[in-house]
Amino acid sequence: MPKKNQGGIEITEAGVRKILSKIKHPEITKHDVVTLGMIPEIQVEADRIGVKLAFPFPEVPIAEQLRAQVRNALQGALKGVRIDVETTQMAPRQRASFTAMARGERPSSASRENVAQVLAVMSGKGGVGKSSIAGLLASSLRRRGLRIGILDADITGPSIPKIFGIHQAPIAGPQGIKPVPSSTGIEVMSINLLLPDEDQPVVWRGPLIAKAIEQFWKDIAWSQLDFLIIDLPPGTSDAALTVMQSLPLDGIVLVTSPQDLAGMVVRKAANMAKRLGIKLLGVVENMSHVVCPECETKIEIFGSSQAEATAERIGTRLLGRMPLALNLSTLCDRGEIEQFHSEVLDSLTDEVLAGVDSNEEPSA
Amino acid sequence: MPKKNQGGIEITEAGVRKILSKIKHPEITKHDVVTLGMIPEIQVEADRIGVKLAFPFPEVPIAEQLRAQVRNALQGALKGVRIDVETTQMAPRQRASFTAMARGERPSSASRENVAQVLAVMSGKGGVGKSSIAGLLASSLRRRGLRIGILDADITGPSIPKIFGIHQAPIAGPQGIKPVPSSTGIEVMSINLLLPDEDQPVVWRGPLIAKAIEQFWKDIAWSQLDFLIIDLPPGTSDAALTVMQSLPLDGIVLVTSPQDLAGMVVRKAANMAKRLGIKLLGVVENMSHVVCPECETKIEIFGSSQAEATAERIGTRLLGRMPLALNLSTLCDRGEIEQFHSEVLDSLTDEVLAGVDSNEEPSA
Repeated sequence: MPKKNQGGIEITEAGVRKILSKIKHPEITKHDVVTLGMIPEIQVEADRIGVKLAFPFPEVPIAEQLRAQVRNALQGALKGVRIDVETTQMAPRQRASFTAMARGERPSSASRENVAQVLAVMSGKGGVGKSSIAGLLASSLRRRGLRIGILDADITGPSIPKIFGIHQAPIAGPQGIKPVPSSTGIEVMSINLLLPDEDQPVVWRGPLIAKAIEQFWKDIAWSQLDFLIIDLPPGTSDAALTVMQSLPLDGIVLVTSPQDLAGMVVRKAANMAKRLGIKLLGVVENMSHVVCPECETKIEIFGSSQAEATAERIGTRLLGRMPLALNLSTLCDRGEIEQFHSEVLDSLTDEVLAGVDSNEEPSA
Repeated sequence: MPKKNQGGIEITEAGVRKILSKIKHPEITKHDVVTLGMIPEIQVEADRIGVKLAFPFPEVPIAEQLRAQVRNALQGALKGVRIDVETTQMAPRQRASFTAMARGERPSSASRENVAQVLAVMSGKGGVGKSSIAGLLASSLRRRGLRIGILDADITGPSIPKIFGIHQAPIAGPQGIKPVPSSTGIEVMSINLLLPDEDQPVVWRGPLIAKAIEQFWKDIAWSQLDFLIIDLPPGTSDAALTVMQSLPLDGIVLVTSPQDLAGMVVRKAANMAKRLGIKLLGVVENMSHVVCPECETKIEIFGSSQAEATAERIGTRLLGRMPLALNLSTLCDRGEIEQFHSEVLDSLTDEVLAGVDSNEEPSA
């Protein structure tokens, strides 16, 4: 309802937006807070105006300063009205658009209407089976009839094409380069599909790696997808940072192994995600044990499980514990990961879907 | 022997050097080829001058151009004398000095007289046990009475302090920050020793990572060492590139696992090393199998060994196959890696030492 304040000016949502559009972001001086998507909600009531001020990350140093600016601008223009400014956190797509604009890019490049949800599989630590878990999760979601893509963000150590048995180069279509479909119809994109020889190293420093990942997101003609799964390389450097900052990530699945060492590095990854405001869907413990094919002894090859403790310490859920299945390495080496089934995988998939559907706020 | 050529000018090694010092490197225009260390040898004979022209890497696009320039400069100044210009590859310290000068830094910063040999443990692939192998090799060399340091170049996923049970921060001495000694006296330097909390992520893009590694080499007060072992992170990006370009690396130990997938990524790493002119000491296959503690069945958890084939395909030697020892994870988690002994480790250490002593040229 349009209202008039004491000064006689009619107050509308559009009017509030106009006042706020004069406030520049102190660090991104080219844009105002409205254009940057920082005002997701305006409520105009009888004697009160409520504004939500959204930030991309949980801890933003200028948050209080900007909040005061918003309040003062409204209070100055609309005397006698109560002004409530509530700070909140941006949704994934807003966050990605914000980051794009902060870098002077067009915000549209950050969002893709045809990809419903973007999930990343991350660990921090190498070799705990991120790519296997990403591949298994994709295969399992696909078996449930969902439309799935995998973006292999491990530019210097790409594993995804091999475990899916994909060797052909992608072809260019009118909408851009098309990802290569797997045998069950999962769309796959990886740097290794673009190399003349899979043994060729990609000796690139960070900025080029970041660029390649952004192009895999923006310039690849992904079909209509229910989920795009991103396989991140180890570490908390360029690849992870680019995916977390520039892509509208809806959640992260953390992969760990029973080793104490893996737990420590995974906690680093979790802390990075929290700092950047990304939702943690939970932790998967991989290679929990192996079962002796002769005597069926359960051998804890990397020591006893620490997954519950790791999940608790991070403040997230344990999504599942995957044993090291002897046939999985073989299937992966043969490019037939999609043929792997297990009850643990089914339940892991349920847990991930449940986590995605929950409306929990990102953990702070 | 000083000689005179047809023009009557006395030809000496210093004279040849003076002529060549007028030739600038076409891409590093600030320096001439003599200052850049590209002329390691000059032979003055009766009617022949032999010059070695050294390049940092095996495949340098301007090699032929520069060779012709060297020959023409000498031929022009010294008529009637046969000029032989042989191209060769720089030794590790020359290479590191060259790279430093190419970047406009002082060459002295690249070499350290007190560190006799620098070895890197690399894989390309994560989680195949680079840090374990680096730690085991260091421990084993130390048991043989050698003076050893470990530089943990895995900035975003540092494992070395944990497996050596080191938690105290390094202290500053008059020569710079001192690495922390392990229980058997191995000097250790890692980013994790500098963090207030080991769970804290290091969210740095590539250039900062490269900078940190260079500082760990140049600015840390390493004692007199027989070997400095560098534990590289997975991948062929900033960390590996910086270590290979800026440090006088005497050789690389490649670590792989029986998975075909690991083999592919390790071949990428090997190709990177070859391209940058670094000597490959050989391949270690880690986690070859596990022995069931109940029935002693040998279980090939990651499929059957491909190490021989991988080594052959890379054109290097197989240094050893380490089984996954169930007590090693426990020792690593307890920070007691130095207490691990095995015959395979002893023989692996022999092989590495033999590789270092051999005067083979870097494989091309």
